[in-house]
Amino acid sequence: MNTVQVETPGGSYPIHIASGRLDLLGQSIPDDATAIALVSNPTVYALYGQRASQALAKTGKRLVHIELPDGEAYKNWETLNLIFDGLLQNRLDRKAVLVALGGGVIGDMGGYAASSYMRGIRFLQVPTTLLAQVDSSVGGKTGINHPLGKNMIGAFYQPVAVEIDTDVLATLPGREVAAGLAEVIKYGLIIDAKFFAWCEEHVDALRALDSQAITYAIQRSCELKAYVVSQDERESGLRAILNFGHTFGHAIESGLGYGEWLHGEAVGCGMVQAAELSAITSGLSAESVQRVRALTAAIGCPVRPPDLGTDRWLELMQVDKKTEGGRLRFVLIPEIGQAVFESVPAEALRRVLDNAALPQE
Amino acid sequence: MNTVQVETPGGSYPIHIASGRLDLLGQSIPDDATAIALVSNPTVYALYGQRASQALAKTGKRLVHIELPDGEAYKNWETLNLIFDGLLQNRLDRKAVLVALGGGVIGDMGGYAASSYMRGIRFLQVPTTLLAQVDSSVGGKTGINHPLGKNMIGAFYQPVAVEIDTDVLATLPGREVAAGLAEVIKYGLIIDAKFFAWCEEHVDALRALDSQAITYAIQRSCELKAYVVSQDERESGLRAILNFGHTFGHAIESGLGYGEWLHGEAVGCGMVQAAELSAITSGLSAESVQRVRALTAAIGCPVRPPDLGTDRWLELMQVDKKTEGGRLRFVLIPEIGQAVFESVPAEALRRVLDNAALPQE
Ligand SMILES: NC(=O)c1ccc[n+]([C@@H]2O[C@H](COP(=O)([O-])OP(=O)(O)OC[C@H]3O[C@@H](n4cnc5c(N)ncnc54)[C@H](O)[C@@H]3O)[C@@H](O)[C@H]2O)c1
Ligand SMILES: NC(=O)c1ccc[n+]([C@@H]2O[C@H](COP(=O)([O-])OP(=O)(O)OC[C@H]3O[C@@H](n4cnc5c(N)ncnc54)[C@H](O)[C@@H]3O)[C@@H](O)[C@H]2O)c1
Ligand SMILES: [Zn+2]
Ligand SMILES: [Zn+2]
Repeated sequence: MNTVQVETPGGSYPIHIASGRLDLLGQSIPDDATAIALVSNPTVYALYGQRASQALAKTGKRLVHIELPDGEAYKNWETLNLIFDGLLQNRLDRKAVLVALGGGVIGDMGGYAASSYMRGIRFLQVPTTLLAQVDSSVGGKTGINHPLGKNMIGAFYQPVAVEIDTDVLATLPGREVAAGLAEVIKYGLIIDAKFFAWCEEHVDALRALDSQAITYAIQRSCELKAYVVSQDERESGLRAILNFGHTFGHAIESGLGYGEWLHGEAVGCGMVQAAELSAITSGLSAESVQRVRALTAAIGCPVRPPDLGTDRWLELMQVDKKTEGGRLRFVLIPEIGQAVFESVPAEALRRVLDNAALPQE
Repeated sequence: MNTVQVETPGGSYPIHIASGRLDLLGQSIPDDATAIALVSNPTVYALYGQRASQALAKTGKRLVHIELPDGEAYKNWETLNLIFDGLLQNRLDRKAVLVALGGGVIGDMGGYAASSYMRGIRFLQVPTTLLAQVDSSVGGKTGINHPLGKNMIGAFYQPVAVEIDTDVLATLPGREVAAGLAEVIKYGLIIDAKFFAWCEEHVDALRALDSQAITYAIQRSCELKAYVVSQDERESGLRAILNFGHTFGHAIESGLGYGEWLHGEAVGCGMVQAAELSAITSGLSAESVQRVRALTAAIGCPVRPPDLGTDRWLELMQVDKKTEGGRLRFVLIPEIGQAVFESVPAEALRRVLDNAALPQE
């Protein structure tokens, strides 16, 4: 088993990564827990609910199951309240433990519910998508969406542990795998050139979910994210580099309508655009841009941005008249493995966006 | 001006107590705040909204007003969402500051909204009831009610400062003053015998809201609560003593229906019952019990518990068959100024409750 330790002011906890962890979940439940609430959705529960339940039942503690509807569209207050209803109807107390079994949506909602129930109960992250395993389950960001904005309501709240069973990826749709791999290569791009090169070499093994390769990729991703988060738990500085490719990515997601492209797909494409921008403003070599494009394509993400029109792009990136006159801040990579957070001239941004409108081969 | 400094792991901040603080609110807004959201209700806003707004406007920062309906019945998710709506519609960012102007209901909801908006923005407590000034605004407990329980959803979240203007108490209904004074004498009972004696001597001045007396009482209450909270921010130990009288008090509130007696009134009466229990189990002298009863009556709180019937009392105190066979934990005072958290024999509790059913002169 591989263990990554996360150290933040808000808490210190292990991430366990291995095949078969699902059958050992009970080991991560603190001895003094009075009860366990297993929070999941029908998709994940049908696949892994029974194994998780059996493993948790081994603790001998009372186990309550709370089922939420599946999908980003339900990451809202109404669904969050279903968790509170379940916890209260079953009279769970402050010493209960919440287990979030699912992708990032379940993890974000489960974590936020845990942070708020009786002003905070312990929770265990059991991420079952690649994106959740390498990104959303690590670092303590939790929350829900509001009609006026994604992830607007939430808390920084660390779990007692993260349990990653690499086997569960076998049932994940291919697009979800590609989307998760986009965040994996993001870590290489912003902070670890050697890891990026390793991903290039092992891209076929990664896409095939080869056990050894995917385990290492998850472990290294968690280590790198944990490092960044330990430096800046509450996103006042360094943590911003984790948003590499995300300004473009978010514009794609909302420009096409959420759900059209997966978040990771949009980020993949957005990283290519951010690399192009880095070439114009920060000295990234043309060869490096090409490596970013090639690996993004190889993991199965789109690399050609949708043609939204430059004006719409700028609007979606919230470059309004005012900031456009000034400058906009982006995460850029002067070279692969190094990130900076800098303002760029609107002109440079326009050149990248005009590119998006060109027919590409 | 009197200042009490609160030190907790979650933050360190001043409580300013003085006549006229309302006109100086701008001084507590951090320089780097991008905007201010003033959260209040129609009752309080009609009385003090303009003065608060003018003081905040002096910062030159954008000021947004968010009005919530008045009353404990609205301390719920729907109302909380009105705050999020207002913050998002006005595009307030992570560097905005929320100002909660009102009693404990506004403070609890404003604080919880601040803790969750974009995973945490800064907030300023401006408590306008005596109860909020001596209790709810200090210590960082925030939250809302759930249909299945009061204060079930929330966060520990400390403000950047607490601004207490003693003048605003002038418009407070007399019953609210009495209810606040109950929490004041509670601090004396659990932790400071000298302060309890001081309250006995100055009870008329306190009821009349004499400026010097009430300022000192607020200051001392804040100091004592700050001390307890600094030892135990998240209520894992010592903080429990703040619940002296509250097990009985909560039973009264829910037994009569919330709102029938004010919380502080129920706590006042509950402290008399807790003193009686302390006499039976923990050696509190009969003379001390009498002092508790006399002062509680003198501040204007009821001292005769409602006749709910012993069985209903036990049910309301959640003494079910199981715990009744065992023992129930209470905050008790072996003498005035000292609290312990101990289990008591069901028999002793029954004796106190049977008392409640007796006709009293
Ligand atoms: N907290 C953070 O730091 C952070 C970081 C990145 C993303 N996020 C959030 O994560 C969410 C996206 O997470 P996601 O990509 O995991 O989406 P998701 O949770 O919606 O999961 C995607 C789909 O896969 C299904 N699924 C999950 N595990 C499966 C498995 N093993 N086999 C088959 N199907 C499975 C889910 O039921 C769902 O239908 C977004 O809401 C985003 O805001 C949070
Ligand atoms: N967070 C904590 O640690 C803590 C501690 C104790 C109580 N509480 C909470 O506090 C709440 C009770 O607070 P409360 O007693 O202040 O009730 P409240 O906020 O409902 O205020 C009582 C009434 O007085 C009005 N009011 C406020 N200031 C006024 C003024 N200066 N003049 C005239 N009217 C005024 C209010 O609008 C309201 O109608 C409860 O919800 C309770 O759960 C929290
Ligand atoms: Zn992402
Ligand atoms: Zn109280």
